[in-house]
Amino acid sequence: MSDPRVNSVTEASRKGSDLHLDLRQTGSRRAALADALREAVRTGRLTPGTRLPPYRTLAVDLGVARNTVADAYAELVAEGWLTARQGSGTRVAERIAAKTPHGPKKAQVEPARPTHDLRQGRPDATSFPRTAWAAAARRAITAAPHDAFGPGDSRGRPELRHALADYLGRVRGVRTTPDHIIVCSGFAHALRLLFGGGVLSGPVAVESYGLPFHRSLLATAGVRTVPLGLDDQGTRTDALGTNPATTGGSGARAVLLTPAHQFPTGGPLHASRRTTAVDWARTRGGVVLEDDYDGEFRYDREPVGAVQGLDPHHVVYLGSVSKSLSPALRLGWMVLPPHLVDAMLAAKGEREAWVGVTDQLTFAEFVASGNYDKHIRRMRQRYRVRRNRLVEVLAERAPHIDITGIAAGLHALLRLPTGTEASTLGAATGNGIAVDGLATFRHPDTDVPHRDGLVIGYATPAEHRYSAALDALCGVLPLPRA
Amino acid sequence: MSDPRVNSVTEASRKGSDLHLDLRQTGSRRAALADALREAVRTGRLTPGTRLPPYRTLAVDLGVARNTVADAYAELVAEGWLTARQGSGTRVAERIAAKTPHGPKKAQVEPARPTHDLRQGRPDATSFPRTAWAAAARRAITAAPHDAFGPGDSRGRPELRHALADYLGRVRGVRTTPDHIIVCSGFAHALRLLFGGGVLSGPVAVESYGLPFHRSLLATAGVRTVPLGLDDQGTRTDALGTNPATTGGSGARAVLLTPAHQFPTGGPLHASRRTTAVDWARTRGGVVLEDDYDGEFRYDREPVGAVQGLDPHHVVYLGSVSKSLSPALRLGWMVLPPHLVDAMLAAKGEREAWVGVTDQLTFAEFVASGNYDKHIRRMRQRYRVRRNRLVEVLAERAPHIDITGIAAGLHALLRLPTGTEASTLGAATGNGIAVDGLATFRHPDTDVPHRDGLVIGYATPAEHRYSAALDALCGVLPLPRA
Repeated sequence: MSDPRVNSVTEASRKGSDLHLDLRQTGSRRAALADALREAVRTGRLTPGTRLPPYRTLAVDLGVARNTVADAYAELVAEGWLTARQGSGTRVAERIAAKTPHGPKKAQVEPARPTHDLRQGRPDATSFPRTAWAAAARRAITAAPHDAFGPGDSRGRPELRHALADYLGRVRGVRTTPDHIIVCSGFAHALRLLFGGGVLSGPVAVESYGLPFHRSLLATAGVRTVPLGLDDQGTRTDALGTNPATTGGSGARAVLLTPAHQFPTGGPLHASRRTTAVDWARTRGGVVLEDDYDGEFRYDREPVGAVQGLDPHHVVYLGSVSKSLSPALRLGWMVLPPHLVDAMLAAKGEREAWVGVTDQLTFAEFVASGNYDKHIRRMRQRYRVRRNRLVEVLAERAPHIDITGIAAGLHALLRLPTGTEASTLGAATGNGIAVDGLATFRHPDTDVPHRDGLVIGYATPAEHRYSAALDALCGVLPLPRA
Repeated sequence: MSDPRVNSVTEASRKGSDLHLDLRQTGSRRAALADALREAVRTGRLTPGTRLPPYRTLAVDLGVARNTVADAYAELVAEGWLTARQGSGTRVAERIAAKTPHGPKKAQVEPARPTHDLRQGRPDATSFPRTAWAAAARRAITAAPHDAFGPGDSRGRPELRHALADYLGRVRGVRTTPDHIIVCSGFAHALRLLFGGGVLSGPVAVESYGLPFHRSLLATAGVRTVPLGLDDQGTRTDALGTNPATTGGSGARAVLLTPAHQFPTGGPLHASRRTTAVDWARTRGGVVLEDDYDGEFRYDREPVGAVQGLDPHHVVYLGSVSKSLSPALRLGWMVLPPHLVDAMLAAKGEREAWVGVTDQLTFAEFVASGNYDKHIRRMRQRYRVRRNRLVEVLAERAPHIDITGIAAGLHALLRLPTGTEASTLGAATGNGIAVDGLATFRHPDTDVPHRDGLVIGYATPAEHRYSAALDALCGVLPLPRA
């Protein structure tokens, strides 16, 4: 009230309480009075049932026109703050809950941030190409046709679908046209739509190791998952359909694979297993779901092309920018066999694009301008250096720990001595290291023998924190057996 | 092949066919050869079963190292394009489907674009503030903390939730804190999550008129909708719970309302009906769902504040930028009673932000910088002029047609003579006018008498096409009864 911009009056209500109405001097008098009255009710200074002064009285007190007071009262009556009844004047409504809700008193939702973050699945958040992305956004927003800001195409912007058809064909060997691409908010969204939306049905054959999050999404959609075996040629797609016992006796209708880089054990799917999966789908009317989550990141030779290229009519190819740019963009895509496009559009909702138009147009521009290739090359080089550093550090400080799955991707698998995974994870947590154990990813029904291991997401830390993270990791690895 | 950058050789395969391999001269020889081979298989020039020439032969033909050929073959074998068997050499795999899928041959998914678009629910797409938005995007992307590009907070970015709590409090009278706001991709997404995700359950009392899309979303989630009556004070919330017959005898658990501007009939909800709805929710343990779809657009007086302000513990407030900026941004928000926050986070998926981080940060910056208020003011002025023009034109050319619901929003309701709605819509379609009839929005179970009408979305056309659209509309309106 010592603020010179604020008028203050004291008004004796019928209940005898003193009411201060602080009117800001900016804006209209009516709005200022209405705000001040609302605030007085909100804070409980004007209690339910309190009768407000007549227009004239308050108008004189505040030095405003009588109509200003009448209008402000009417506004609050219309909003339900006040009631006006013939003969009883204007009163504070009885039902106003005076308190605004406050934040939850329980513990913060976010867990404490670890000192060293080696969890898998996250690209280095400090490496997001801000400048190039902002420049692409400006170009894309400026150049967009007007209809881009209208209701839009639920398959996604045509600019983006064209850019993706070209890019995926060139880099991943995907064979498709823009008409068979549908933009979505990421792999999980695609999985929800495919199975929750009735496009496909289960059971789904899955790999012995995979993200529990994906399995639980399928379970929520009422889809049973049946694990396939795993050997040195990768997932046992040869067991699909040929041996009913292996697929639970019920026969899978689809198989979910990570062919370029098995997640998280790290090997590629052998050529014969790739073709076996496609042959199964073709002869049994099944569908291969190809999760190409990190296909661009292969270090020791060129990427292995997508299985989709072998048979675009029987493979659903799923990709996103979550590993290549950022999971925070929520931008992914499905490449569908032609016969599934309409069912997917129905499942997706014809009105719903899900991904914002500016990100779609920006990414289309980012790809078409070559900035995406440039970013991938830069990150591939950076992650390769990190991977090499991990291998070197382990060779030096923990030569008894095998490391596998290092030819590609953003993570590697450390094999631990039998029975040491849980204690190693405990030691990691105790030392501020966030890292995932291999057991987390194991399908509960698999008969693949359990192996102890750590899945190391070497892309996750910021560049300047990577050495310290490796150092900390070596400090908690089990010692060699005597 | 006349392209001087391309090497071309003719290779006689074992089948005697001539094979042209066009190698681009950029990039590595191995990659160029692999691409050329893939292309040859794709296009069917190399047919399944065809045996490829030995490494040495092809190497000599192409003038490349023998290892280059061996590596390219190995890559295609790994991808499943080729097979290599001891003693039979390298052959094109049998299972390759030669054809890339082509676009659907059926009619285009998009209907023909109308000459005049007067459909409701769409802001003028030409008015999107591109320059200001791109500038806000640059500022937001540049200033964002690194963790913005990490996995993120599934409630939405804190910057945005803070900006929304301030903005909604100031402009719409919403009382909340950032902890009770959850960002989503729009109203439909919120409805899916609330009822499909088990946060709330039905039956849901709804207005006699509303979007059929919303009713069908609820039906898909297995939720029965029960229509409330409608009179000159707005939706009959006084019938909630007090009269079991009116709510279908089963008692609604929630009520979905458009209090600021009934959609599409256009009146505000009377103060007594607002408080009645909140009282019902409080005494019966129900929830009011407040669809504040166009609350900022009120022309003849200040906006009516949100019902949520009356009782933040019993109202779910839902808003978006779909009317104020663009439906293509897919950006909306829920303001939740504290006790529903955890259930909503579980329904939403704790890993899934749904809305891209750049749009979230950009909109936060857009609001905090005052650009959003500025844009709303500009559009309010523009739409007010359009509304006035609509009223004037009708007064002049069709004075027998009543117009209602004009105090707010982006649409108005024209009352048509009884029995003329269908024929008027037919005439409109025949004259290239897209417009919705009132019957589309009527709940199938309501006992409110049917009235003929047109819902005119006067915000939809581009500025320079508005006069022509009104002119065309007047041309198809029914003539006065003799």
